[in-house]
Amino acid sequence: QSNLQLYGRLDVVVDSVRFKGTPNSVSVTDLSTDTSYWGVRGREDLGAGLKAFFKLESGFSVDTGAQGSATQFFNREAYVGMGGNFGSVQLGSQYTPALWITTKVDPFQRSANGAIFNLMQQNGGNRQRGYLLLQNNALQYVSPDVKGFSARAMLGLSEQTAAPRDVGEFRSASIEYSQGAFYGGFSIEDLKIASTPAGAAWSNKTVTLGATYDLRTVKLYGYLLKNTLTNSRDAEGYMLGLTYPVGAGTVRASYSAREVDGIAGSKASVMALGYTYDLSKRTTLYTSYALLDNGAASNMGLWPSSKTHGLPATGQDVRSIEAGIRHFF
Amino acid sequence: QSNLQLYGRLDVVVDSVRFKGTPNSVSVTDLSTDTSYWGVRGREDLGAGLKAFFKLESGFSVDTGAQGSATQFFNREAYVGMGGNFGSVQLGSQYTPALWITTKVDPFQRSANGAIFNLMQQNGGNRQRGYLLLQNNALQYVSPDVKGFSARAMLGLSEQTAAPRDVGEFRSASIEYSQGAFYGGFSIEDLKIASTPAGAAWSNKTVTLGATYDLRTVKLYGYLLKNTLTNSRDAEGYMLGLTYPVGAGTVRASYSAREVDGIAGSKASVMALGYTYDLSKRTTLYTSYALLDNGAASNMGLWPSSKTHGLPATGQDVRSIEAGIRHFF
Amino acid sequence: QSNLQLYGRLDVVVDSVRFKGTPNSVSVTDLSTDTSYWGVRGREDLGAGLKAFFKLESGFSVDTGAQGSATQFFNREAYVGMGGNFGSVQLGSQYTPALWITTKVDPFQRSANGAIFNLMQQNGGNRQRGYLLLQNNALQYVSPDVKGFSARAMLGLSEQTAAPRDVGEFRSASIEYSQGAFYGGFSIEDLKIASTPAGAAWSNKTVTLGATYDLRTVKLYGYLLKNTLTNSRDAEGYMLGLTYPVGAGTVRASYSAREVDGIAGSKASVMALGYTYDLSKRTTLYTSYALLDNGAASNMGLWPSSKTHGLPATGQDVRSIEAGIRHFF
Repeated sequence: QSNLQLYGRLDVVVDSVRFKGTPNSVSVTDLSTDTSYWGVRGREDLGAGLKAFFKLESGFSVDTGAQGSATQFFNREAYVGMGGNFGSVQLGSQYTPALWITTKVDPFQRSANGAIFNLMQQNGGNRQRGYLLLQNNALQYVSPDVKGFSARAMLGLSEQTAAPRDVGEFRSASIEYSQGAFYGGFSIEDLKIASTPAGAAWSNKTVTLGATYDLRTVKLYGYLLKNTLTNSRDAEGYMLGLTYPVGAGTVRASYSAREVDGIAGSKASVMALGYTYDLSKRTTLYTSYALLDNGAASNMGLWPSSKTHGLPATGQDVRSIEAGIRHFF
Repeated sequence: QSNLQLYGRLDVVVDSVRFKGTPNSVSVTDLSTDTSYWGVRGREDLGAGLKAFFKLESGFSVDTGAQGSATQFFNREAYVGMGGNFGSVQLGSQYTPALWITTKVDPFQRSANGAIFNLMQQNGGNRQRGYLLLQNNALQYVSPDVKGFSARAMLGLSEQTAAPRDVGEFRSASIEYSQGAFYGGFSIEDLKIASTPAGAAWSNKTVTLGATYDLRTVKLYGYLLKNTLTNSRDAEGYMLGLTYPVGAGTVRASYSAREVDGIAGSKASVMALGYTYDLSKRTTLYTSYALLDNGAASNMGLWPSSKTHGLPATGQDVRSIEAGIRHFF
Repeated sequence: QSNLQLYGRLDVVVDSVRFKGTPNSVSVTDLSTDTSYWGVRGREDLGAGLKAFFKLESGFSVDTGAQGSATQFFNREAYVGMGGNFGSVQLGSQYTPALWITTKVDPFQRSANGAIFNLMQQNGGNRQRGYLLLQNNALQYVSPDVKGFSARAMLGLSEQTAAPRDVGEFRSASIEYSQGAFYGGFSIEDLKIASTPAGAAWSNKTVTLGATYDLRTVKLYGYLLKNTLTNSRDAEGYMLGLTYPVGAGTVRASYSAREVDGIAGSKASVMALGYTYDLSKRTTLYTSYALLDNGAASNMGLWPSSKTHGLPATGQDVRSIEAGIRHFF
């Protein structure tokens, strides 16, 4: 049991949120929670360069102790894999290739209220114009690093026995490149979803492109996303950001936006400014300010306030100021 | 990961319960479970006298393997804290200041069917005339020990955006003193609850006072509780108890009662006698006898039989004889 | 905390399933999961030959990360025990005596789609003509090994306060014998269930007899089950199997069948052929083929495809070909 590890993260914030305008302006102070989880992971050396490994991870909320999902306890990946020089193969419930790019090109590290996923990630209901976070019943190949390049390919099985049998099927691939001060990643994915009215499955395709460039001190971040959906207009998103180290701390800023082509008022944007201060490798204090500007036809939410209060009304803007602590174990 | 700890407690009992009188007398033998949990906790030394720490704890039943709460998996505290010479600050889902006093003044150590919380603790529905156990969205300050004195202050945020916005808000403080053979604790709390009919929030206030005195061999225990609720009569409770060591074992006895002022038949009392025997620091055998006497207008329950059978009928008495094993890991 | 252990198993398979005939033939490829769990167990030496021990184990699905039960989190035993030269006593939610015999006489080790429990184990609803897997509120005595003999006796309490008060009561005992190349086990159990129409509880009795004989290289397996239910015809099942080691791998084969006496079309049978290959003590690759033949009045399912697709239609046959990986930690 050499490589068995119990690990986790607790992230809790005091969050002052203001919902502006329609129907009424209201300010509220929450104790909220950002990405928090615990898990077990391990690895076994099988000899001849082969290894087996697994991960089980469960999300929860520090403010209430509630599990992240009522039914999917290990809702942050559950898989077994085997690997070697050829790369590795993983079977189970897994993050999509697109997810891994966002972990590298988000100045806010997918946390705090400037997180890139606010506008870019699929989030249930009709908020489906973005990359998918997690895919059940997934087979994934992860390549080794070859001269800075690495790649992923994933197939998520639909497991349907009734027509249309491809509803739920997911295919995705990504390629990433890292060299010196530069990182770039590209992903493409296609999720088959039920059509309205019922009939042949629709294709929900998302392409993402992310990059960072480290100018020393200042580091630049960029992200582009394009989503096409059968019988719908295209949707696009982008993000520009930077980080700037100040002593043991880092200033973080980003501007992101998404809209559906030719739909008036569909644009939403998030402007965010933050500061993180590392007390140690495991413990970080942070603060951030973010303003979500929803167009007249948009009702995107701002994490993590959307956890407590749900989505704002259509067209309603949200402002958040937060201060929190993040602790890894 | 120096201070990471996986820990827990399993407590299982054979419980012979008798429900007396209305509607019918019935005796039943259960395999039941007392306080059982598992958790993960850790601490990190940040230097300069500072530390970060966390706790995640989940309750369950040994007799069925069921989790304590369907939605709140870590239902026995989930928090992150930072501390130093100044004391510590904790953010998350936490036990109230009043809880910690009961852990010290209950001859039955909050276990077995003489446990102090039977009559003193809020327990949902209209059984709200007591101290609160756990508060979500809570900020807590815990003082260091200063010449035997220590204090706690807690604020639980309501997070409401609609009027009355203070419903759910919780404020509490406690002070405890320990010197030689004496321990004393005092707590005050105020939970805002929804009024009937709807309107301004009602104030549900509880004051508790607990003390123990160790006469060598015999140790004495006492507890007083007073609850005031807007538009309601006051409620009071008290407990007197003692423990007496016998070899590796301890005899335990208590009498507790609560009633609402001027409400005929509202009095409930629990008389309990028990014996615990420590096989080791981690494993204890125990037995206890308890009689719950419900007044004509009272339907308090007796733990842990109330877990299996729910509350008795109004006015129904409950007698329990149990023998169990408690094991810490 | 000397003997505290965090452990588990992940078992994930690619499963090509064919549902034949009525209503329509359909083939589907799944990522499915076989028996997977994580748990915590520990033991404490109490001196004088005494020990205390516990087990908490929770099942889950690797393909989705879902917990095995929405309400019973530790759904694969939760108990505390004490033991010594006299054997041990265990209190909690526990596997039945009959279960332990199936772990030894199943050529497929209770896994893959040839698993013995497909036809032999109670499985809810009207599929109750087999041994019970798990019993809550159970007291169990486990004997020490005496010259190859060992025994178990279990009482599961009904905890009913309303008539018929014995509904849910469970009594079982087993005796096992192991000597050289031979293993044999015998179990008897009686579960009281609600009658239709309501009245005195019905008795659901199951007797099982299992044995293995190791001829070196080839090992033979046999199993017999007889179930009697008040006011119903008897049901019988049997299994014959063998394993044959080939290098680091093992060929596995079995044929099992069950039917209700004198009910035309009630017969179901499973024919299975498999191969397991141990990459290490902890990691195994495997493949298997199985054909479930349901009689015209039978709708037994084939694990693990029944997890994803539920039971087949009455009379429908199921064929499965799977390849998977099993990893212990």
